[in-house]
Amino acid sequence: MMRKAFETKYMEDFEIGDGVESFGVTITDAHLVAWASLTLDHFPLHMDEEFAKNTIFKGRIVHGPLLFAMSIGLAGINGFLGDSIIAWLGVENMRIPRPTRIGDTIRVRATVKEKRKTSKPERGILVLTYEIINQRDETVMVFDNLLMYPFREPASVH
Amino acid sequence: MMRKAFETKYMEDFEIGDGVESFGVTITDAHLVAWASLTLDHFPLHMDEEFAKNTIFKGRIVHGPLLFAMSIGLAGINGFLGDSIIAWLGVENMRIPRPTRIGDTIRVRATVKEKRKTSKPERGILVLTYEIINQRDETVMVFDNLLMYPFREPASVH
Amino acid sequence: MMRKAFETKYMEDFEIGDGVESFGVTITDAHLVAWASLTLDHFPLHMDEEFAKNTIFKGRIVHGPLLFAMSIGLAGINGFLGDSIIAWLGVENMRIPRPTRIGDTIRVRATVKEKRKTSKPERGILVLTYEIINQRDETVMVFDNLLMYPFREPASVH
Amino acid sequence: MMRKAFETKYMEDFEIGDGVESFGVTITDAHLVAWASLTLDHFPLHMDEEFAKNTIFKGRIVHGPLLFAMSIGLAGINGFLGDSIIAWLGVENMRIPRPTRIGDTIRVRATVKEKRKTSKPERGILVLTYEIINQRDETVMVFDNLLMYPFREPASVH
Amino acid sequence: MMRKAFETKYMEDFEIGDGVESFGVTITDAHLVAWASLTLDHFPLHMDEEFAKNTIFKGRIVHGPLLFAMSIGLAGINGFLGDSIIAWLGVENMRIPRPTRIGDTIRVRATVKEKRKTSKPERGILVLTYEIINQRDETVMVFDNLLMYPFREPASVH
Amino acid sequence: MMRKAFETKYMEDFEIGDGVESFGVTITDAHLVAWASLTLDHFPLHMDEEFAKNTIFKGRIVHGPLLFAMSIGLAGINGFLGDSIIAWLGVENMRIPRPTRIGDTIRVRATVKEKRKTSKPERGILVLTYEIINQRDETVMVFDNLLMYPFREPASVH
Repeated sequence: MMRKAFETKYMEDFEIGDGVESFGVTITDAHLVAWASLTLDHFPLHMDEEFAKNTIFKGRIVHGPLLFAMSIGLAGINGFLGDSIIAWLGVENMRIPRPTRIGDTIRVRATVKEKRKTSKPERGILVLTYEIINQRDETVMVFDNLLMYPFREPASVH
Repeated sequence: MMRKAFETKYMEDFEIGDGVESFGVTITDAHLVAWASLTLDHFPLHMDEEFAKNTIFKGRIVHGPLLFAMSIGLAGINGFLGDSIIAWLGVENMRIPRPTRIGDTIRVRATVKEKRKTSKPERGILVLTYEIINQRDETVMVFDNLLMYPFREPASVH
Repeated sequence: MMRKAFETKYMEDFEIGDGVESFGVTITDAHLVAWASLTLDHFPLHMDEEFAKNTIFKGRIVHGPLLFAMSIGLAGINGFLGDSIIAWLGVENMRIPRPTRIGDTIRVRATVKEKRKTSKPERGILVLTYEIINQRDETVMVFDNLLMYPFREPASVH
Repeated sequence: MMRKAFETKYMEDFEIGDGVESFGVTITDAHLVAWASLTLDHFPLHMDEEFAKNTIFKGRIVHGPLLFAMSIGLAGINGFLGDSIIAWLGVENMRIPRPTRIGDTIRVRATVKEKRKTSKPERGILVLTYEIINQRDETVMVFDNLLMYPFREPASVH
Repeated sequence: MMRKAFETKYMEDFEIGDGVESFGVTITDAHLVAWASLTLDHFPLHMDEEFAKNTIFKGRIVHGPLLFAMSIGLAGINGFLGDSIIAWLGVENMRIPRPTRIGDTIRVRATVKEKRKTSKPERGILVLTYEIINQRDETVMVFDNLLMYPFREPASVH
Repeated sequence: MMRKAFETKYMEDFEIGDGVESFGVTITDAHLVAWASLTLDHFPLHMDEEFAKNTIFKGRIVHGPLLFAMSIGLAGINGFLGDSIIAWLGVENMRIPRPTRIGDTIRVRATVKEKRKTSKPERGILVLTYEIINQRDETVMVFDNLLMYPFREPASVH
């Protein structure tokens, strides 16, 4: 059987509770340097070890937006979300219960939490809860991600 | 006079309406490749010109989370936010009114919208509205960013 | 249903003819610069437009090893190969029928061609044919990739 | 108050002794790899630990031109220099009193040393001394940077 | 004497046994992150320390294709191969006798093994054996690389 | 013959007028983005097309320090300078006669201009003139680079 990495997916293809757990990535200095380089976020808590040692964190911590952005990529790369997302509508309910440090290994679990209708019958909103988990199975970030998808059959009632 | 790039800032140092307008950046292929590389977001609307040509966008568009992340960096790099942020509390009210394309030049305007107290008298929450604007002065993304800062004088009433 | 991005896979899990077709990537200047940067392959046919204009290719072409390396990544990232590969044994039968240029969009099709036994009953070799295809459905590179996998049941005859 | 990250600056806006002290950056392997990648400076004192161990430095040291280039960026990114530099005229009087190692944290202090006239009344030269300092407050590089700026009022005598 | 970095080379310019030994490079986290980023090869044996600790390798190992690609670059960058390669014909006889770990320093020795004729008298094939060696002088990868070169004098018999 | 990419070189090994001409590199957006990313030099003349269009340059130009840094790498990578440089002593006499634009192809010619003694008989200073040339054979940057090398025979008179 030949499968396609990314398929056209519709609102009807997702059930509440469906989800995907990504592979893991060990966060290194190189991730932080690449992130600060690209986004210009050189806040010293992330990039200046001397500064960071004197904060309550006692050392550099990983940029929150980097974890957020990687979780978006990690949850989508294996094909679970398909390639038919119409629009990214942003995030809700973000919480960052604990810091992530260089050397930690993170993975993400994305689960369908809710399916919303919109004013247009052919478009719905998928609400997925993204949970980023470290090597000690602790949650380090959680948020809801809102994605607009087409309905396969716009008249269908869900 | 010798000034410091990043200063210790307190809740009291920000007034509603204060803000900063960043310098501009022309978004290139190189930004998208670096973003997809680092975050694994290879969604074909951003990275596959053939796929993107057949969407309503008629071509590749810039990753929304890339714009978001760069706006965080651009608003902070010149020192307006100082270096005493205690925590990033996430974002609210994100809207993406129009797509950004390769070759567009974006800048960000961050403005203090609200100052919230917390249950702890020594910590407050600064709500800043980030507006990303392109070379035609069109808004391409807007969101509220929530940052926790210390109060200089915890007992002070604001 | 919660699925895992990468699963433990065994020789028995692959049938001749099984395969995966990756998503597409438009190759840009940024890919070539990143490749030359990391690997030191600054051969002027790839990096010097003036030199390349005077070759039979009439312009810069994409590094062959870059296409090769991306095809390895693209075929594996969506989980088809699992995460239980014991060793990479190299490649055989590489052919590069035509050049790839900046701006071309490539995708890869990896298909199980052969399952070989080894001297150890618990390990087999999976031979996959990788075919890199451009936006005109032309094959731009083809090779066989040899991967060692465990057998789930070493005594099983395949 | 809305401030702009980069403002138009004139010769008259700088006084001898004015300056800026940048935020700090901890130099990591990732900085050296990115530098060698981009500039092709793979001199083994910087990139080959085995080679470097046998030199008088007893290990890899950071590329001098990398420190130089980062100091240019660090001094300018927060807006002190504005965005109206007409030309970069090069550097003078560079000294590198001691090596910088992976893991060191550097910051730069740029101070106006001299204001020179040119043959054209509307253009002057700003000479800034850049001093790169490590986490032990030791100077690791110092040089004068020559920048051409416009005069706001060309007839003015300075 | 002014020499050129890359010269036009012909089949006749290479003798069996001629070769070049590259400078060394210490492989760091930054190399692996850059490689996974560019090629999408995030196989957890290379990028997930927790996963890798539980394999027979007891920790992350360097991507084989990264070593392969760097060896191509390292052998060519100093000019030994010139700039007149007509085509890369792929590799043969690859073996990877032992893993390479982060922190290892590798160099490559490329030696002319064989000169083959082709059906066209003006083109020949140079077969070079590439041997990648670590800081303990152990071979970590070996393969034959096939490059097509022009003959200076097509009628010449070799 | 097996040659080494980088050899131990001494003051005696360089004659006035000796030199090397590098291979060429076409400068792309990706080079500028990588440079700005790593060094934080986001001066809008280089990174903001809208800003740059309104300058005397009528568009973005390549960072001067990027050209400088690449010329250091390009001149050294092919082995002409060996690997026994004791210290980089900085540059003198820099001139930038014309701008370099995205799409230009540059190469560098480094020539031994002068051999200076130092107060220590075992160490000398090599002064090399670096000339960066574009695809129209125009000089775009020139400077003298000062490198300290050992003498093979400290007592020798040069």
